[in-house]
Amino acid sequence: MDAAALRKLLEEVRAGACSPDEALRALQRLPFADLGYARVDHHRSLRQGLPEAVYGRGKTPAQCAGIVSELLSEPHGGPVLLTLVNDTQAGAAMAANPGGVRTGSTVVWRAAPPRPEQVLIITAGTADLPVADQCQATLEALGFKASLIADCGVAGIHRLIDVLDDLVGADAVIAVAGMEGALASVIGGLTGAPLIAVPTSVGYGAGLEGVTALLAMLASCAAGVVVVGIDNGFGAACAVARILGPAEEAPEPM
Amino acid sequence: MDAAALRKLLEEVRAGACSPDEALRALQRLPFADLGYARVDHHRSLRQGLPEAVYGRGKTPAQCAGIVSELLSEPHGGPVLLTLVNDTQAGAAMAANPGGVRTGSTVVWRAAPPRPEQVLIITAGTADLPVADQCQATLEALGFKASLIADCGVAGIHRLIDVLDDLVGADAVIAVAGMEGALASVIGGLTGAPLIAVPTSVGYGAGLEGVTALLAMLASCAAGVVVVGIDNGFGAACAVARILGPAEEAPEPM
Amino acid sequence: MDAAALRKLLEEVRAGACSPDEALRALQRLPFADLGYARVDHHRSLRQGLPEAVYGRGKTPAQCAGIVSELLSEPHGGPVLLTLVNDTQAGAAMAANPGGVRTGSTVVWRAAPPRPEQVLIITAGTADLPVADQCQATLEALGFKASLIADCGVAGIHRLIDVLDDLVGADAVIAVAGMEGALASVIGGLTGAPLIAVPTSVGYGAGLEGVTALLAMLASCAAGVVVVGIDNGFGAACAVARILGPAEEAPEPM
Amino acid sequence: MDAAALRKLLEEVRAGACSPDEALRALQRLPFADLGYARVDHHRSLRQGLPEAVYGRGKTPAQCAGIVSELLSEPHGGPVLLTLVNDTQAGAAMAANPGGVRTGSTVVWRAAPPRPEQVLIITAGTADLPVADQCQATLEALGFKASLIADCGVAGIHRLIDVLDDLVGADAVIAVAGMEGALASVIGGLTGAPLIAVPTSVGYGAGLEGVTALLAMLASCAAGVVVVGIDNGFGAACAVARILGPAEEAPEPM
Amino acid sequence: MDAAALRKLLEEVRAGACSPDEALRALQRLPFADLGYARVDHHRSLRQGLPEAVYGRGKTPAQCAGIVSELLSEPHGGPVLLTLVNDTQAGAAMAANPGGVRTGSTVVWRAAPPRPEQVLIITAGTADLPVADQCQATLEALGFKASLIADCGVAGIHRLIDVLDDLVGADAVIAVAGMEGALASVIGGLTGAPLIAVPTSVGYGAGLEGVTALLAMLASCAAGVVVVGIDNGFGAACAVARILGPAEEAPEPM
Amino acid sequence: MDAAALRKLLEEVRAGACSPDEALRALQRLPFADLGYARVDHHRSLRQGLPEAVYGRGKTPAQCAGIVSELLSEPHGGPVLLTLVNDTQAGAAMAANPGGVRTGSTVVWRAAPPRPEQVLIITAGTADLPVADQCQATLEALGFKASLIADCGVAGIHRLIDVLDDLVGADAVIAVAGMEGALASVIGGLTGAPLIAVPTSVGYGAGLEGVTALLAMLASCAAGVVVVGIDNGFGAACAVARILGPAEEAPEPM
Amino acid sequence: MDAAALRKLLEEVRAGACSPDEALRALQRLPFADLGYARVDHHRSLRQGLPEAVYGRGKTPAQCAGIVSELLSEPHGGPVLLTLVNDTQAGAAMAANPGGVRTGSTVVWRAAPPRPEQVLIITAGTADLPVADQCQATLEALGFKASLIADCGVAGIHRLIDVLDDLVGADAVIAVAGMEGALASVIGGLTGAPLIAVPTSVGYGAGLEGVTALLAMLASCAAGVVVVGIDNGFGAACAVARILGPAEEAPEPM
Amino acid sequence: MDAAALRKLLEEVRAGACSPDEALRALQRLPFADLGYARVDHHRSLRQGLPEAVYGRGKTPAQCAGIVSELLSEPHGGPVLLTLVNDTQAGAAMAANPGGVRTGSTVVWRAAPPRPEQVLIITAGTADLPVADQCQATLEALGFKASLIADCGVAGIHRLIDVLDDLVGADAVIAVAGMEGALASVIGGLTGAPLIAVPTSVGYGAGLEGVTALLAMLASCAAGVVVVGIDNGFGAACAVARILGPAEEAPEPM
Repeated sequence: MDAAALRKLLEEVRAGACSPDEALRALQRLPFADLGYARVDHHRSLRQGLPEAVYGRGKTPAQCAGIVSELLSEPHGGPVLLTLVNDTQAGAAMAANPGGVRTGSTVVWRAAPPRPEQVLIITAGTADLPVADQCQATLEALGFKASLIADCGVAGIHRLIDVLDDLVGADAVIAVAGMEGALASVIGGLTGAPLIAVPTSVGYGAGLEGVTALLAMLASCAAGVVVVGIDNGFGAACAVARILGPAEEAPEPM
Repeated sequence: MDAAALRKLLEEVRAGACSPDEALRALQRLPFADLGYARVDHHRSLRQGLPEAVYGRGKTPAQCAGIVSELLSEPHGGPVLLTLVNDTQAGAAMAANPGGVRTGSTVVWRAAPPRPEQVLIITAGTADLPVADQCQATLEALGFKASLIADCGVAGIHRLIDVLDDLVGADAVIAVAGMEGALASVIGGLTGAPLIAVPTSVGYGAGLEGVTALLAMLASCAAGVVVVGIDNGFGAACAVARILGPAEEAPEPM
Repeated sequence: MDAAALRKLLEEVRAGACSPDEALRALQRLPFADLGYARVDHHRSLRQGLPEAVYGRGKTPAQCAGIVSELLSEPHGGPVLLTLVNDTQAGAAMAANPGGVRTGSTVVWRAAPPRPEQVLIITAGTADLPVADQCQATLEALGFKASLIADCGVAGIHRLIDVLDDLVGADAVIAVAGMEGALASVIGGLTGAPLIAVPTSVGYGAGLEGVTALLAMLASCAAGVVVVGIDNGFGAACAVARILGPAEEAPEPM
Repeated sequence: MDAAALRKLLEEVRAGACSPDEALRALQRLPFADLGYARVDHHRSLRQGLPEAVYGRGKTPAQCAGIVSELLSEPHGGPVLLTLVNDTQAGAAMAANPGGVRTGSTVVWRAAPPRPEQVLIITAGTADLPVADQCQATLEALGFKASLIADCGVAGIHRLIDVLDDLVGADAVIAVAGMEGALASVIGGLTGAPLIAVPTSVGYGAGLEGVTALLAMLASCAAGVVVVGIDNGFGAACAVARILGPAEEAPEPM
Repeated sequence: MDAAALRKLLEEVRAGACSPDEALRALQRLPFADLGYARVDHHRSLRQGLPEAVYGRGKTPAQCAGIVSELLSEPHGGPVLLTLVNDTQAGAAMAANPGGVRTGSTVVWRAAPPRPEQVLIITAGTADLPVADQCQATLEALGFKASLIADCGVAGIHRLIDVLDDLVGADAVIAVAGMEGALASVIGGLTGAPLIAVPTSVGYGAGLEGVTALLAMLASCAAGVVVVGIDNGFGAACAVARILGPAEEAPEPM
Repeated sequence: MDAAALRKLLEEVRAGACSPDEALRALQRLPFADLGYARVDHHRSLRQGLPEAVYGRGKTPAQCAGIVSELLSEPHGGPVLLTLVNDTQAGAAMAANPGGVRTGSTVVWRAAPPRPEQVLIITAGTADLPVADQCQATLEALGFKASLIADCGVAGIHRLIDVLDDLVGADAVIAVAGMEGALASVIGGLTGAPLIAVPTSVGYGAGLEGVTALLAMLASCAAGVVVVGIDNGFGAACAVARILGPAEEAPEPM
Repeated sequence: MDAAALRKLLEEVRAGACSPDEALRALQRLPFADLGYARVDHHRSLRQGLPEAVYGRGKTPAQCAGIVSELLSEPHGGPVLLTLVNDTQAGAAMAANPGGVRTGSTVVWRAAPPRPEQVLIITAGTADLPVADQCQATLEALGFKASLIADCGVAGIHRLIDVLDDLVGADAVIAVAGMEGALASVIGGLTGAPLIAVPTSVGYGAGLEGVTALLAMLASCAAGVVVVGIDNGFGAACAVARILGPAEEAPEPM
Repeated sequence: MDAAALRKLLEEVRAGACSPDEALRALQRLPFADLGYARVDHHRSLRQGLPEAVYGRGKTPAQCAGIVSELLSEPHGGPVLLTLVNDTQAGAAMAANPGGVRTGSTVVWRAAPPRPEQVLIITAGTADLPVADQCQATLEALGFKASLIADCGVAGIHRLIDVLDDLVGADAVIAVAGMEGALASVIGGLTGAPLIAVPTSVGYGAGLEGVTALLAMLASCAAGVVVVGIDNGFGAACAVARILGPAEEAPEPM
């Protein structure tokens, strides 16, 4: 609720079109629905241009289904995502809410219309694919063209150089890597595009379940590399949505 | 060196305008100058739109001065920064290279011409200012309008709500916070703009010299928040440069 | 056993009403019962106003049942809790000791009579509910009115502002949050009531199984926030019992 | 700003006593003063019953003096504290703002009038005294009677038993300990009063600069112990202020 | 092999009773048997007065059985222990080697004859019993009188004071505790006997699977407390064997 | 692709034998095959003398089989390894690619011809064998003579001294140890041969799943000890391949 | 205060030789003196056979002097130690209390008469000497014969074997080592005597200021090794005092 | 002392050329000199082909000088190094022992004669030079040709490709890098030569004083990379000595 909307409300109060008590309720209750176990925020996509996402872990199948239903009940809402779900959660939510499309641990309803920006996801290894898949599914739900190039680890630097043309043409790049996470630094030196690094928990022993890659990406010698949490492909896609902004029309973002 | 440049070089070889040995040297030696103690990269600003930055720590004053001189010797280069310097290093570099402007631990030569984008830096406390100052100096060297609002910690949430208008108008936002780093999450819920979180080593004890803020920002419940290393105000500014793109050919960056 | 009781005992010795050997036994053996595998403390609720609680993890079902029985054998005792139990442990204890009421992983016998104080539990997300449920069950066993508001994470700050009236009216507030734990800092700025923060192991990767939330809460920029261990909803409820003190009559606390 | 104040403002708008634009400014700008380097919050003591505290570390002497002056300019304000200052900072602030009283690293202006509650601070060793002193100075600035008993470590358990009478009579207890932090657990078993544990960075090697004591206090086997950050004596005192409530309307605080 | 044995061997060489090649073999090969997957040391019990122990984890049932058989093949050997075994490993070893007695995860063959020293094992809680049981089984295999008192946590300090007589009479004391591990410090202040602290992985969250108790015990404010690894009840028993020394006759310890 | 090959290509361009576009493709695309989920590097064995290894974890059985097939399709390639596989992965890969030989979690195709160098693997305990087995299988796939001596822990130092002759004769030594990892230091003092230390996750509690052994090996007081990641027997074998170099004929290593 | 003393006191009460109030004071106040900044425990040496030790760090010179004076005022007391002092603290304490003897950072008053047991301190390197010196000074204050052999690191295992005779003859052995701490494991395999390991903060990088040695010693593959905190030579000496027992009534200590 | 030497000694005993007592002394006392504060090992260079090195930290100047003198007193010894010294230590040692040559924190006496192998040291940045200098000084003391190329960080990958010819020609490569340590992985993919990675404490914040680089190098996706401790340039040089073997009999070392 920005200043303009607030002034309008106050002018209605002065004009008698709105009682103080009504205004009070309006001011105190920005729109969300209280399901008891969750307080569903109906205006986030208007406010931020980000998808409505339900984090599946730790929720019952019924809670997953219910929150998705509530979000879809908003007629002008944007994409709705259910992330990190298992089969039972996905099944319950998709049965209760037709039209969902599942990719790995992500289910998408009401994907946004396509938009022209190109996003490039590069992984260091084959085992990083589940995280990259989550990222790609989110980007596509938001309307972006998201291409994924797997297995470009820095120990075979020529495989990375081979995709230089794709790198140069991308509007944003997402580097997904576990183990020592060096991929982000090398890509950071090859392109000046927005670059988001996603550490993964791939690898074992000294990889410390992603902590090594996380620290290495944060300490990258390439300037301007930014980092999201371990295995957080969803977060990297949302960061792209922030960076590339709303599609054609986005009159007042908040 | 992208594919177009490579093809042009090869065609010169076929045309006899360039001998194979000359091409070999060109291919093997992308432009940089070897000072013995450093290999100065002359084309980074062309390649990436990022400033040439010299990291001061661990370098002698003479090394600082010499690397800056080498970078400035490139006639068409962009801004040159010397970061995290003490008085002795700054003095040596500025004496040898006139025209430098110092802000705190940062010295800037050859700042870029102004460009229209607005970047907003918000700090949680007064003690976060040195990191924010480094960030602001870098952004201004790159030509951005960078405004800085200090002391908006979440324990007085109304101070943050007071700057909502600035938040809404910014092309990118940088949240600088130590202690528990909650500022990033709250801002992330208020705006859909690109948001970069900078953890600082402010605070003591359980702040663990910035690690707590770093972890909290990575684990933020606000989607799409990205993070740079502890106290790395310079890195956050470079990330903005990546996000908003080069000045010349950036008609509507977002 | 306080000084008054000790003086009385000694005077009985002088008067011959109590032999030295009897006094010795009395002095050495404050009341508890030795079950072999546990030494049950019968006077804790008198001494501290806290419930008798049996920590279920690592105990056999028979041990759970036996310790609860021993505690209930004290005719004037207060509430008895069995915490963090699985189905087998709960079943054995409830079969052997009628009257138990189970909520999630907690079973309560002999709940205290209602008392007027209001305690507000607020969670950042739906997935924090199991910890909040344990906390609520313990508070209710102690007689408090405990209301629970779920899913008020700081990324949608208006959901929190919506419950401001509840916040202002509470005698104590418990903030339950995983991920970056920012909820505690924001609430700490909105109310001056006693505020106990409970970090939860919700979230993954950089959440470090609750350590990030724990550190963030300890480093909170809001003054006077206190913290209990990760997922320790029971401990937060006991802290409330300490803070709000014994109900109507509490003649000699120890 | 609670609902009652908001309704009153809106009614003034309806009555024409306040223009919408004036109301807008009032709503957007809760009272604080912007000094450029700090945004001073004038109503925190009204809102929370906590002292206004300026955290000295990382601020210049002039900033310390200026923020204190701003806080003291509020005629009806409560106590003002400047914490963790060195001699230069304290000198500048006290010269600019007469009436300050310094204890160790803390300076207090405008201490609250005395109130009857008793707070007991117990330290495990002599070396914990600086943290305990900061705690005591803050409590006294808030009007509490704060007594301090030093050197009651659990390796000489009779020294602790000797102060049982003081323990029983206290309205709140603060346990200050480094090394293994066992003091909190033992006190927690001896009293049912509110108990706040402050880990200190006393000790070396396996004490890990306070982390061992912090973890031990969080994992305490005594129920209802709450913990603040390492060396945070100020925070423990503020927690007491939350627990015992405002002075005016606190007939029987516990 | 001590100096006396070495001189005797060399004199046999000079006297021609032993060829240099024979002596070489004797010198290079102190007595052990090579099973391929293990090199069984037959003289450890002679050398050290410690039991022969086979660490079960990571070994196949056949390996467990085979190493125990080899150890028992030494006619004059002392006790043989198989530790941390599951049912399959224990079954295989006991079937192949009659006479084993199992307690929890420990199997003992050829227990030593009883000796008079008293060892007292005290646990903080009921859940520490598996570690204490392993310790007791090992002590009894070595011939010691080992009594075990459970559930003496410091939050009910009178339960500990109740066993003071046992404490005073013990030749060595073993404190077994998880969570905050304060038990060791308190016992250390009550007795001057040898005191070995065993941290356990009991507890959760801030207990960090025993690390908190470990650190707390190492940082104990009681002088002369020594510590073994987490859950290492076997190691604590062996330390007692070192401390109390060989039984009646121990002619040449190595 | 070294300088000689590059000059030859450029000369072909000048001579018209190769068009610039053809050269561009050759330069950009060093030989590998893109399977979509993996980019198989066909020249690594030529370039480095190392085996082609497929890391099994996180790959589907079909992916394992497919990548191995691609690697074997190179007619002049060297050994191919599939590491850290479970039964399903191994089965799929071996069914699709005849000739594989499995040892534990490793499958080898097309082992190199024998070469004369001796490599000695020494483990501290029986439980370190799976890591040592992986190392031995890799070494034998590369053609080395690899002998393995198990259970030489430093607590029975004579067992280690017994294998001194083997130590002295080895061209490289690999020390495999968990727990405190002292084996590497002791061996490092006994031989001047190349010595690679492999920490294992054997042990529990203070072993911290291999971190203790890792740190101890890195901090070894024996000079020139080098370390690989926890449980990385494969990596240690590859390090030996680097150290002992290509077999008889290896004309241009890269 | 043991049961016998308590019974005697109670009998005096019955006999009228002691009034209840006198008994109450005696029972509540075990003997110590309250200096305000410290509570000096006069009976620790009687109770435990350990020296009275004042930990210097964090105490003022006057506090050091005062606590030592108080301890020496007990006419029948045992040795008094002031540990980890700097020159100023030592000077103040020795000036105020004649008869002190300083060794490094330790000052001893009133050393115990010699007793026959031999304690052997072995260090891994020359840089471990300060910790070993503190240990030796404490042992000698307690009356033990303490010999110190420096620089026996396991990388030159023959230097350790050279002192085998000393090892065999010792009543207790203390292994002092930094870096990887392997010395304790090797000594543990060579002797069955009581063995206390002291990790030191010698070394850098992966030594992690003693944490690596600490972890390695706790994870030692030699059975029965016990460990004290990092650099805690004083604690190791006290552990020996516990192990070898009081001098008077220790007919055959081991 | 190998088996051949032992047999020879025993045959002398049989022949009467050596008495058993003489042999005993010879066997027990491998050659070293006991200076009291150090036990100098005279045969290490014979035994291992490694230099005699004295670690300066924590030693007095007199100890540094004395140990170096003792090492130089061996007429047939190899190079002697004094490492990590400050000016005072270096001055004392060089005054007492003429002929020393100092480079940074390293002093070398009696450097080995030149040998033909080429070792290449590559650093990621200018600030890594002190560690690289120590490494180079040690290698040259051992007779190796050691060239050093600075500032080849992976963010400017073409600077690394520029030195490909040097990489291909080296007998061993040492990668020295702080921050994210990615240099080792990239070099590991470019060459099959022995490759030793040295993490440095360069960088700040998320670099964690070298731990990030260390972990990243251990988790490297390039096979066969080995790692030494943080900042341990000396250790890396010694590892090269092990890898390339003794000079005399090393005609083609690899």
